[in-house]
Amino acid sequence: MENFEFYSPTEFVFGKDRENDCGQYVRKYGGSHVLLHYGGGSAVRSGLIARIKTSLHAAGLEFEELGGVQPNPRDTLVYEGIRICREKQLDFILAVGGGSVIDSAKAIAAGVLYDGDFWDFYCGKAEITAALPVGTVQTISAAGSEGSGDSVITKTDGMLKRGAGSPYLRPRFSIQNPALTETLPAYQTACGATDIMAHVFERYFTNTQEVEITDRLCEAVLLTMLKETPRVIADPHNYDARANIMWAGTVAHTNIVGVGRQQDWNSHGIEHELSALYDVAHGAGLAVIMPAWMEHVMPHNPMRFAQMATRVFGCEMDFAHPERTAAEGIRCFRQFLRSIGMPINFAELGAKEADIPALVEKFGIGDGVRGGFMELRADDITAIYKIAAHAEI
Amino acid sequence: MENFEFYSPTEFVFGKDRENDCGQYVRKYGGSHVLLHYGGGSAVRSGLIARIKTSLHAAGLEFEELGGVQPNPRDTLVYEGIRICREKQLDFILAVGGGSVIDSAKAIAAGVLYDGDFWDFYCGKAEITAALPVGTVQTISAAGSEGSGDSVITKTDGMLKRGAGSPYLRPRFSIQNPALTETLPAYQTACGATDIMAHVFERYFTNTQEVEITDRLCEAVLLTMLKETPRVIADPHNYDARANIMWAGTVAHTNIVGVGRQQDWNSHGIEHELSALYDVAHGAGLAVIMPAWMEHVMPHNPMRFAQMATRVFGCEMDFAHPERTAAEGIRCFRQFLRSIGMPINFAELGAKEADIPALVEKFGIGDGVRGGFMELRADDITAIYKIAAHAEI
Repeated sequence: MENFEFYSPTEFVFGKDRENDCGQYVRKYGGSHVLLHYGGGSAVRSGLIARIKTSLHAAGLEFEELGGVQPNPRDTLVYEGIRICREKQLDFILAVGGGSVIDSAKAIAAGVLYDGDFWDFYCGKAEITAALPVGTVQTISAAGSEGSGDSVITKTDGMLKRGAGSPYLRPRFSIQNPALTETLPAYQTACGATDIMAHVFERYFTNTQEVEITDRLCEAVLLTMLKETPRVIADPHNYDARANIMWAGTVAHTNIVGVGRQQDWNSHGIEHELSALYDVAHGAGLAVIMPAWMEHVMPHNPMRFAQMATRVFGCEMDFAHPERTAAEGIRCFRQFLRSIGMPINFAELGAKEADIPALVEKFGIGDGVRGGFMELRADDITAIYKIAAHAEI
Repeated sequence: MENFEFYSPTEFVFGKDRENDCGQYVRKYGGSHVLLHYGGGSAVRSGLIARIKTSLHAAGLEFEELGGVQPNPRDTLVYEGIRICREKQLDFILAVGGGSVIDSAKAIAAGVLYDGDFWDFYCGKAEITAALPVGTVQTISAAGSEGSGDSVITKTDGMLKRGAGSPYLRPRFSIQNPALTETLPAYQTACGATDIMAHVFERYFTNTQEVEITDRLCEAVLLTMLKETPRVIADPHNYDARANIMWAGTVAHTNIVGVGRQQDWNSHGIEHELSALYDVAHGAGLAVIMPAWMEHVMPHNPMRFAQMATRVFGCEMDFAHPERTAAEGIRCFRQFLRSIGMPINFAELGAKEADIPALVEKFGIGDGVRGGFMELRADDITAIYKIAAHAEI
């Protein structure tokens, strides 16, 4: 096991009707003038935003609104948020929505206290050393942003999707009411579930030896997702299944299941180019990319994949041919993704094989090597996109 | 799943040699005048306390020392610590040791800022509303106190062992170097492992339905303990096995594996009377009590025990007679405890059957009912002690 730090100071407030207390949590964590940040019309139409405003009013808080966050949240709205926070001297950002809204809120929070261009944090030019406090009311189980210090933003000019991370970006509190996710369409629910599983797999495939505790915790989250996801697809109003998925999604991404080990994250990087180019849902892109990545890198350590196959997917171990068990595990994963309505190849996603050279170019690896479970070069990236283009079960 | 809050703001600093940075972490969390609190001679003899002092000096911190914490830490030393902190106007408590030292530090931290008797918090007379910041350098994997808001203290007058809990008691940072646990005797290592497993079982046996995620997380910790504990008993210097156990012990008790569900904790209460009366190690007492509690309450929900038996101990499910699988799981647990050198009955622990009436009396249940997985009355407590007195495999 490798040395590590783990720091997750977010207060999670979980369960039915908890969003009605959001005003008092903003107060508890020092807010008085709030930027209320949210996405499209559904949070307004459902009456959620009205209830949030009631709670803010009841707590005696003043606030400004900034809605309109898109999936794959844009830098343009971040600049707008920074401008409003400075102009109105706001001291707290309340994000009401899914990962896109929360990521956008985090970018604003860091940008307000920075003299330069906030994009510096996302292109690796500067490190975040301060941020306004952020609180969240989570409406989608997927990104894990409610419990992480990470944020991913898309630069509209060139559709560059890049991430930043810092302990300063961890929300002070996150209110998680599983019932708020009940109105999500099945497709988006499945995209979220795929993202949650991907966050675990990115940590699970490692070259670090002797990390049984984080292996087992990863498997715990994955087993939960295999049980609960089909239940919410079949019955969107199954509160308990939604609750299990929501907490699993948070556990998957606070990094408690990933400490003490090298992690991978190449599937996320490879997928980001897809969702940036086609503006498809991140989870759907991962459903296409992640099993393709698995197939490509499996020969690097078949026993690790055999472990996943047996412990997570319940495959029978083929002791004479572990690589067959490994391949069977990947097949089971892809079959699971299809069963919950996810695309598994380029055609189903709406991507084009002819774009592969452009995708590899944008991935920006050049003649270099990307570290991780298996080191990847440009040829590997091309091969993974090709597997993804043609995948079948 | 039930509504819950989860808040674990401790910064965990894990790995080799990390204790040498403790001075800078005390500074980071606002300390300048420190109470350095520790136990018996081993931390001094090993040179650990000297290294801690070097680190405190290097960070420009002033400190007072208070050693001598015993297992089952006493109120008398807590009063002494409170006195020193007030007299020297100390603003931070650094606990170097296992659960006893950390629990003692927490009691001092809360007591310093309280006008009344600190014992009020432990006998239920008052609630903790403030505490000095506490940091820890953990030397034993067991109590989970490094990541919890709990503390258990023994009142010397009458040997009453009672607990208090508050978010204010959560350490600001906990430094966890698995190598520091390598000098522990095998018996104490096994006691710690038993305590860790017990912390999970107290959460696992619940009447709350539909908490798959916390079930699976509990099982993840238990499976890790089953793998790693025999390895450290066989080879005390197996760093990786010690590292897995250390992090498993923390995960077991931050409550991340227990949220959203009713918990039990009766085995802990029943054991506390044993370790208070005979001054035996808490983990050894649990090894005797917990399987006895399991046998007594198993008929309340055999399927829950069958789940433990199959998922954790790998028992074959007897679908015609689930209660047989349930019983087999409990037998496996007791066998595991014996295999790591734990006592499994009163004689092996050094307890006397003749004391059972006195133990039940001190448990203080009277004509009342203790809630939990199965409601317990005085007769149940007696029955559990009796099973524990005579247990064999």
